[in-house]
Amino acid sequence: MTASRDVLEKKESCSHSQDPSETNLKPTASTWTHLARVNPAVGVVDSLLRGVGQVMFQNNPITGLLFLVGIFINSYKYGLTALLGSGVATLAACLLGADRALIRNGLFGFNGVLTGIALSVFLQWDGHVAVYIILGTIVSTIGMMGLAKLLIIWDMAPLTAPFVLTAWLLLFALYQFGQLHPTMLIGPMPVRPGAAIQTDLQDVAGSDRAVGLTATNLANVLFRGVGEVFLQDNLWTGVVFALAILINSRICFGFALLGSALGGLTALVLGGNGVTIYHGLYGFNAVLTAIALGGRPDGLACPRRFLVPNWWSTIYALIGAIFSAVVFAAVAVALSPIGMPALTAPFVLTTWVFLLPMSGFRALQRVSIAECASTNSLVRLRSPESTRAE
Amino acid sequence: MTASRDVLEKKESCSHSQDPSETNLKPTASTWTHLARVNPAVGVVDSLLRGVGQVMFQNNPITGLLFLVGIFINSYKYGLTALLGSGVATLAACLLGADRALIRNGLFGFNGVLTGIALSVFLQWDGHVAVYIILGTIVSTIGMMGLAKLLIIWDMAPLTAPFVLTAWLLLFALYQFGQLHPTMLIGPMPVRPGAAIQTDLQDVAGSDRAVGLTATNLANVLFRGVGEVFLQDNLWTGVVFALAILINSRICFGFALLGSALGGLTALVLGGNGVTIYHGLYGFNAVLTAIALGGRPDGLACPRRFLVPNWWSTIYALIGAIFSAVVFAAVAVALSPIGMPALTAPFVLTTWVFLLPMSGFRALQRVSIAECASTNSLVRLRSPESTRAE
Amino acid sequence: MTASRDVLEKKESCSHSQDPSETNLKPTASTWTHLARVNPAVGVVDSLLRGVGQVMFQNNPITGLLFLVGIFINSYKYGLTALLGSGVATLAACLLGADRALIRNGLFGFNGVLTGIALSVFLQWDGHVAVYIILGTIVSTIGMMGLAKLLIIWDMAPLTAPFVLTAWLLLFALYQFGQLHPTMLIGPMPVRPGAAIQTDLQDVAGSDRAVGLTATNLANVLFRGVGEVFLQDNLWTGVVFALAILINSRICFGFALLGSALGGLTALVLGGNGVTIYHGLYGFNAVLTAIALGGRPDGLACPRRFLVPNWWSTIYALIGAIFSAVVFAAVAVALSPIGMPALTAPFVLTTWVFLLPMSGFRALQRVSIAECASTNSLVRLRSPESTRAE
Repeated sequence: MTASRDVLEKKESCSHSQDPSETNLKPTASTWTHLARVNPAVGVVDSLLRGVGQVMFQNNPITGLLFLVGIFINSYKYGLTALLGSGVATLAACLLGADRALIRNGLFGFNGVLTGIALSVFLQWDGHVAVYIILGTIVSTIGMMGLAKLLIIWDMAPLTAPFVLTAWLLLFALYQFGQLHPTMLIGPMPVRPGAAIQTDLQDVAGSDRAVGLTATNLANVLFRGVGEVFLQDNLWTGVVFALAILINSRICFGFALLGSALGGLTALVLGGNGVTIYHGLYGFNAVLTAIALGGRPDGLACPRRFLVPNWWSTIYALIGAIFSAVVFAAVAVALSPIGMPALTAPFVLTTWVFLLPMSGFRALQRVSIAECASTNSLVRLRSPESTRAE
Repeated sequence: MTASRDVLEKKESCSHSQDPSETNLKPTASTWTHLARVNPAVGVVDSLLRGVGQVMFQNNPITGLLFLVGIFINSYKYGLTALLGSGVATLAACLLGADRALIRNGLFGFNGVLTGIALSVFLQWDGHVAVYIILGTIVSTIGMMGLAKLLIIWDMAPLTAPFVLTAWLLLFALYQFGQLHPTMLIGPMPVRPGAAIQTDLQDVAGSDRAVGLTATNLANVLFRGVGEVFLQDNLWTGVVFALAILINSRICFGFALLGSALGGLTALVLGGNGVTIYHGLYGFNAVLTAIALGGRPDGLACPRRFLVPNWWSTIYALIGAIFSAVVFAAVAVALSPIGMPALTAPFVLTTWVFLLPMSGFRALQRVSIAECASTNSLVRLRSPESTRAE
Repeated sequence: MTASRDVLEKKESCSHSQDPSETNLKPTASTWTHLARVNPAVGVVDSLLRGVGQVMFQNNPITGLLFLVGIFINSYKYGLTALLGSGVATLAACLLGADRALIRNGLFGFNGVLTGIALSVFLQWDGHVAVYIILGTIVSTIGMMGLAKLLIIWDMAPLTAPFVLTAWLLLFALYQFGQLHPTMLIGPMPVRPGAAIQTDLQDVAGSDRAVGLTATNLANVLFRGVGEVFLQDNLWTGVVFALAILINSRICFGFALLGSALGGLTALVLGGNGVTIYHGLYGFNAVLTAIALGGRPDGLACPRRFLVPNWWSTIYALIGAIFSAVVFAAVAVALSPIGMPALTAPFVLTTWVFLLPMSGFRALQRVSIAECASTNSLVRLRSPESTRAE
């Protein structure tokens, strides 16, 4: 915590290479890390991959690479806009002179990745959209630093709020601009109290394929929920994403799947639309909320500044995941008059609400500074850019 | 102020029983208080009743009991959901390990009470609603602690914001959930500029009963305004509520009635809907705003951390009450496309805006720390859990 | 920065006349300033004129006077409501006991001016509107002090947020009040994805006059953009406003015109409505954003607490101006279901987002305290009330 505050407060970037504790790095664990530090080209690739990984709190270039693979499996276009967003956002951070440790950890990349994908998912592709994505990713970098400064008062992280705010503003505006054309995913939907909702779990409304709680349908709910974190509505993409998390952290993997399951289950119990549930839309915010609240600072991966693991914090994380599914429905309704998507706003809102009171609840404990320090030094032996430090 | 900050910052709960100043408690004034401290069952009842009283800033178990009586007069169902909300919210605070002094003062109960009532007023009752209320009240407790941590930077209180945010999210979501059925009170209302508004004061639109500024109608405006603080649209409930406040504080009683009258009057002058005015909907936010801004720290009752009484602060409180009636109309319009209720958001917004600048205006003064201390020690002689300390 | 913090924290007003550094004031530069200090009537006029000037960050009574002239050129009614708003807001600040230095610099006037004009632009004039304006301007003063206290944590200024929030609440409410009648400028507009937008630059939709990128049309875009800062849809008013800025600061003049041009250009490129662009509605937020981010602390005029001028900060300001035009479209869409105007919310939002991260970007630098001090002492020789110190 104090470390991240320092990083933000001081002007000089921390040059990790001067750290004496890193002189005895084991060669096996740190070959890539070493290369990333001495070779600028590898360093750039490393930063970009970590940026992709940070979307799900995984500060690991291999996880980031697998996330990209998963996106390309679903769509080349989304993969390319993810790279564009990641590159522009990170370049903007470099040009503006952001702290290098933050850049290396991919903390300016993950909002750019999501902004790039979201604009290409909700807008029909043409040259104007490319300009729009570049503008949006630059603003996402500015918003990331701005929100980090705003929230450091409470020792809170911006999460994906810079992406949500930037993408919302750019998407709202499209109704006023004749050169931008929305895809079919966008459109106002007047609310009707007491309207009948089709609650059968299925792929497409009125489809002939298997309807209800079949194994196939449930697998789709589970893994599409993970895939939708990157707006990828694809079963196999979700499976690749889950494996990518597993490589980095078993605990985060567990909470990701648990979150997706709980999000879908909450919607099933309350009678949500079966098609919406099938495509994982009740799951992706719960995935992120469960990782953020339940993930532990083990190794390279999960966020510091969060909860010390115990039974209470696990229950707390699961209540958060359930609530985030309700918040998804609420945000969708609030935006229905203008037909806009909820994005990851439910995750951001729920996680902020659940992290803010931590120090007031004795049953929960933030990771103490001492514990962080030891974790960090352990981590630093493996990778100097290993902590999500925003 | 400093006291409340301490309570929130430190981990240990302040055990009031160890306070030497309480050894010479007068037996008459402190019998119940003493019982509440030594007998756990009485302590629980005391905390729950104070939680009900805190909805109107009245930290007094008898006032809380009378509030409950008033709710049961109007509806058994609302009374029971009030108890459910109060109980679950307080239990959640205990299990999460919140500071005991805060729990004893009912500071986790009042948002739970309102969340419970609101969900049963706006949703048709069934098992899903019970689960929904339990989820909502747990989140209201988490939100209460979160907002307290957020706002302590400015030495501000969360007021009923945890209730408003939680209930809004849960209510917005209902359009997406087939198992939840809204009551007739919810429904989108498209706005039409320049549409004619019926401005005659009356019970039901087009009713044969007395229309206009009759004594009966004005009494309904006045007392239903007090009743609607708990969402109780009932003349006699409002009368019982007013008496309950009077028992605890004459000044709060005066500001409550003045607020209700000013809220209704503002709407009458500006040409608000006569049926809406009759049912006290322009009054209840003004009641709360007037108590919060005008109430004085006399004895057990009114909020500390507010204004030192003088002519300016009284005028300031009355301007706040008038403005809160306009804000009620504004919030109702903003939510009309999705047909959702304003709840007590106008009170929260107005009171925050009017309390924030206090230290910048010489004509207004916050209760000084010294004065608070003396008030507290006076108060402590009567009741150790006497200050609204969030 | 520290100075402004002091002003807000301490109770006593800084009496500039006791400052020894002002004993050797040059008579030519300080005649008016001297008069304003010794003659209460002149002092009041000086404060009111500075309040008008502060709408565009110009703390200069002559600039303020010319702004008023520009408004009266367009409409007597708007000029009178500007005076009413300015007077009531400043009077409220005096009666509540705000710091005199802040009042003298017009920091309570500029939100009142805009509130007064906005309510008379969007409401059909009658006695109720006068009462409404008085209520609104009082609240704008309270909101100004409140937001200043809120934002001082991050060393940020409220900008025109008090006006935006107050005017929004008062305007939203009008649908509920039969005594208030909106003008034709207000009305809900359902959004339609993919609807055709007429993108020809022209005065009136379907007009016979010159359509397209003619010199006349472009001049209208440029200067009406400046005029719309005060909601004045008039070419010549915009020209007078631009000259008024030029008198005070060439750099602010340059950024104002650049902002207006970039705002219009952004909308032209993205295919915004040609009539909307013609009337400067894409320009006015960009004007304010460009001045706030690009203006320099030279002499009496531009805001302290902003960016040290260099190439990066200039590019940064221009990106901000472009983004503010997109945000204008976004806010317009968000408010379209209830048909409300965006006001200067896009400027406030963009400028906050772009100013917050400054200390985290090495390419940008806030004006250092030392530099501020020297600027101030230079300035103070000319005018003791010369810094926008909120």
